Amino acid sequence: MGLPIAKNLIESGYALRVFNRTAGKSDCLAALGAKLVSSPAEAAQPSGIVLTMLSDDRALAEVSMRGDELVKALGPGGIHVSMGTVSPAASREAAQHHIGFGVSYLAAPVFGRPEAAAVRNLRICLSGAQAAKDRVLPILESLGRGVTYFGPDPGAANVVKLAGNFLLASAVEAMAEMIALVEKNGIGRERVLELLTSSLFSCPVYQIYGKALVAQRYRPAGFRMELGLKDIGLVLQAAAASRTPMPMAGLVCDRLLTGVAKGRGDWDFTAFALAAAEDAGLKIPEQ
Amino acid sequence: MGLPIAKNLIESGYALRVFNRTAGKSDCLAALGAKLVSSPAEAAQPSGIVLTMLSDDRALAEVSMRGDELVKALGPGGIHVSMGTVSPAASREAAQHHIGFGVSYLAAPVFGRPEAAAVRNLRICLSGAQAAKDRVLPILESLGRGVTYFGPDPGAANVVKLAGNFLLASAVEAMAEMIALVEKNGIGRERVLELLTSSLFSCPVYQIYGKALVAQRYRPAGFRMELGLKDIGLVLQAAAASRTPMPMAGLVCDRLLTGVAKGRGDWDFTAFALAAAEDAGLKIPEQ
Repeated sequence: MGLPIAKNLIESGYALRVFNRTAGKSDCLAALGAKLVSSPAEAAQPSGIVLTMLSDDRALAEVSMRGDELVKALGPGGIHVSMGTVSPAASREAAQHHIGFGVSYLAAPVFGRPEAAAVRNLRICLSGAQAAKDRVLPILESLGRGVTYFGPDPGAANVVKLAGNFLLASAVEAMAEMIALVEKNGIGRERVLELLTSSLFSCPVYQIYGKALVAQRYRPAGFRMELGLKDIGLVLQAAAASRTPMPMAGLVCDRLLTGVAKGRGDWDFTAFALAAAEDAGLKIPEQ
Repeated sequence: MGLPIAKNLIESGYALRVFNRTAGKSDCLAALGAKLVSSPAEAAQPSGIVLTMLSDDRALAEVSMRGDELVKALGPGGIHVSMGTVSPAASREAAQHHIGFGVSYLAAPVFGRPEAAAVRNLRICLSGAQAAKDRVLPILESLGRGVTYFGPDPGAANVVKLAGNFLLASAVEAMAEMIALVEKNGIGRERVLELLTSSLFSCPVYQIYGKALVAQRYRPAGFRMELGLKDIGLVLQAAAASRTPMPMAGLVCDRLLTGVAKGRGDWDFTAFALAAAEDAGLKIPEQ
């Protein structure tokens, strides 16, 4: 995910210093003019801006707080823009930590897969201190189709991102149950989805994931089920922290647990939809 | 729902004989040229076509089977097009019954509220015998934006209609839980829904029902919660009959039961979304 974003930043004329935790992954960026460095701190410049795309709370804590190297390198006036899908709590903690070094932390999680990032089709949620927000806005706007600012609470944008992922996963489970019902009644899944996704549900989530559920091809993964499980875990964690019962999120989490329990953690996350089919005694195709 | 459909049929040049179980409800159709009659059987003509829009299985059985009056009046070659949201089982039973009188039964449930019917914006699901289907197709096509035929099983179209209603109700519950989560995190529901319904979820269900959930105005009802509960009951009944576990449908049914239990059966069905807010300790506005 970081790769297409970095490419677009270079293309937009920004000078990048790039660090990746997995060596070699960012080599292609060097050819485009980026300077590859060997630690997060080396990517930072005094009062500069660092964007991170980290996969979970632990990675965020490690990269942005361990040894205080990154924040010391950024120093007063520096900004850390955290674009990964992490918990609101992790964002709030990092923001609190960064303040001590004069560094602003912004949460800027994105909606969209790497293919969408490549064509600047991301939707970006943003939250954190207003002044820092104003400074990074042009950069973020260059990466997608719009940035929505949700105020100074650094965790707010993460809540919205998790809310959207929950809505998406719920739609997949609902489609999966619906498909099982029509199939058990001898009706073709394809025609039903065609009808619904050309009328009441004529939007990307139902059209794209509906097609995936019709095709029942879950490998290779566009977005791994293990990551989907991580995300819904974050939803439930944020729900518990804010005292918000979310029974549908609990149901979806159980479905993802079942998928991973059956050894499908590396399949596309939409494969959790197989639970509805299997519970109904339907055969699923070999992957 | 029958009223705007009847108006459109008259406008399209069809000669109508109209019966309504509630006296007076169809008086305005007489002014447009329809002949009002005083029993379902009188609406039928030998080998003719009768459309019914009945609210539940019991009404369908009563109007179409009691005393065999309607089917005797239709006689061999007659067609009964049943447009209400009833169970697949009720359709299959009526079809079986009608065959004995030479009458074809077609299920033709519709997606769309009365306002959509008025502007010929319905989506119609159709199933039942092929020959009868061919004869009524032009009539049904004149009523909406498309008719999708799901084969000879008379219950098939009902399954699809119930499947769509289930998908819709699931989307409402998911939005309700999502809204509760963002509100408990101090984020405005309106901005989040704006973001999601202009991107991943840019389709009528999320846009229209999302607006209703943002406004939290559930009276007067566009579609009564009691009817929503009836529909989800039919979903679970069809699921049980076809051995299809649908945990999300069970969850939505419980939410509707809660809404009706709290005395909101006459509110709009989307008010079942209040359960997520109330369970999260949020105050809901007076209706």
